[in-house]
Amino acid sequence: MTLTPVSSWASFGGTLSVHDHESAVTGTTMRFAVYSPPQAKKGPVPVLWYLSGLTCTWANVMEKSGLQRTASEHGIMIIAPDTSPRGPDVPDDDAYDLGQGAGFYLTATEAPWDKHYRMDQYITRELNALVAANFPADMKRQGIFGHSMGGHGALTLHFKYPDTYRSCSAFSPITSPSRVPWGEKAFTAYIGPPSIAWEQYDATELVQTRQTDAHILIDTGKADQFLETQLKPDIFIDACETSGQALTYRMHEGYGHDYYFIATFMSDHIAHHAKALKA
Amino acid sequence: MTLTPVSSWASFGGTLSVHDHESAVTGTTMRFAVYSPPQAKKGPVPVLWYLSGLTCTWANVMEKSGLQRTASEHGIMIIAPDTSPRGPDVPDDDAYDLGQGAGFYLTATEAPWDKHYRMDQYITRELNALVAANFPADMKRQGIFGHSMGGHGALTLHFKYPDTYRSCSAFSPITSPSRVPWGEKAFTAYIGPPSIAWEQYDATELVQTRQTDAHILIDTGKADQFLETQLKPDIFIDACETSGQALTYRMHEGYGHDYYFIATFMSDHIAHHAKALKA
Repeated sequence: MTLTPVSSWASFGGTLSVHDHESAVTGTTMRFAVYSPPQAKKGPVPVLWYLSGLTCTWANVMEKSGLQRTASEHGIMIIAPDTSPRGPDVPDDDAYDLGQGAGFYLTATEAPWDKHYRMDQYITRELNALVAANFPADMKRQGIFGHSMGGHGALTLHFKYPDTYRSCSAFSPITSPSRVPWGEKAFTAYIGPPSIAWEQYDATELVQTRQTDAHILIDTGKADQFLETQLKPDIFIDACETSGQALTYRMHEGYGHDYYFIATFMSDHIAHHAKALKA
Repeated sequence: MTLTPVSSWASFGGTLSVHDHESAVTGTTMRFAVYSPPQAKKGPVPVLWYLSGLTCTWANVMEKSGLQRTASEHGIMIIAPDTSPRGPDVPDDDAYDLGQGAGFYLTATEAPWDKHYRMDQYITRELNALVAANFPADMKRQGIFGHSMGGHGALTLHFKYPDTYRSCSAFSPITSPSRVPWGEKAFTAYIGPPSIAWEQYDATELVQTRQTDAHILIDTGKADQFLETQLKPDIFIDACETSGQALTYRMHEGYGHDYYFIATFMSDHIAHHAKALKA
């Protein structure tokens, strides 16, 4: 698989680069970004995957979160995939929460989405192999985190592939998509009416049988406009208590669902992963 | 003068807020942003003005530079004005380097620009008074910095109003607009053919007779695409040496003209101002 360079910038002694490649999994051209810290010039470094929320691309977190500063301190590489396949031939929806920009990190089985929407396979297999082959990444030390829809993606991929993604954290995640409007809409469209298939993509369901040895960190703002309707922290907190999943869930007075919130706590999250991955 | 709230976000323990107001100086509605650090809840704090470059608004620096982190550590308020008057009734030009988004921090005397384009008066008088009246700002401790066109704006306003803007720094500034295409084009349009009037808006001319007691910090990337054609550091460095202006001008291998560069060195700049303003 060939990477086509799109852009590159020096940043905090390292390099932020953006790449295109033809994806066999999604059947589209996919774009992602990599922040390589200065330590990567000397040898492989741990890898932290950031999964973005609805409507986002690689750019939101790389432009707005300030992650390069702490990643350069700890010597961690950060990968930011897109949130869905894109292009004029890819099915889409006028709503911001379905179709392009709203892949929900799952494999769609319903038409018309089933042809291209396979973001979980894309990230865990194809992009994983691409990163391993093209960057100085220590693939034995990978963590995963994300925001909102991507925070949920990080939780589910951690629970399903704990040996790959050894550490996990999230900002303002959806935690139980089966029980909230965003999730119900996306799951129904992508994988059909409620069924046992929903459980494999629902973090609250997964943690009940797939709890891990990791200590999960979650931060959410108390002024988050989606807190009560879409995020519903208590459901997940209760499930973690029941299953014995180690979890620190912090609620922050005054903060919203935005990147100013994420930037404020980004250092804590990268330090959390650095500690777990011994970066 | 009344401020109309536009947006507000919690950020690093402080608040980022955006405001509109009717400007008597520009004859338009003007928008600006304020980052108030947590220390401002207890009393007045020093104020640092950030002047943006071509095409920018308040948003670029507030979204992309990560300044809130260091401003919250040092307890400094940051004000980000717009780069020009705007609106359907304000003269504009199709080029990115003239008209809306390209005010060059001067008072235009040529038609059609002379009716609204008065960004130096707007910032030094009107917005200064608005900030003093509406925020916990210690107006005896003000500094100024900026990027590119705004880096030049910061230098010129510091030289012309050293008792107001006591500290000064810049990222990738134009330093001698009279001698580079961006400046020649804008000055000709806004203030007419080359004349003695150009000198009052040219940092290299100003420093020859208005050197200050401040120690100026400038950072520029060696990979900046505008370095040789528009920025020309040597002209300003020579002028500072001749006039005895204290200057640290750092050149950085690999860095460009972008906000990834600015973010990398933002902490150094805020610390520079904090030290000068005893924040």
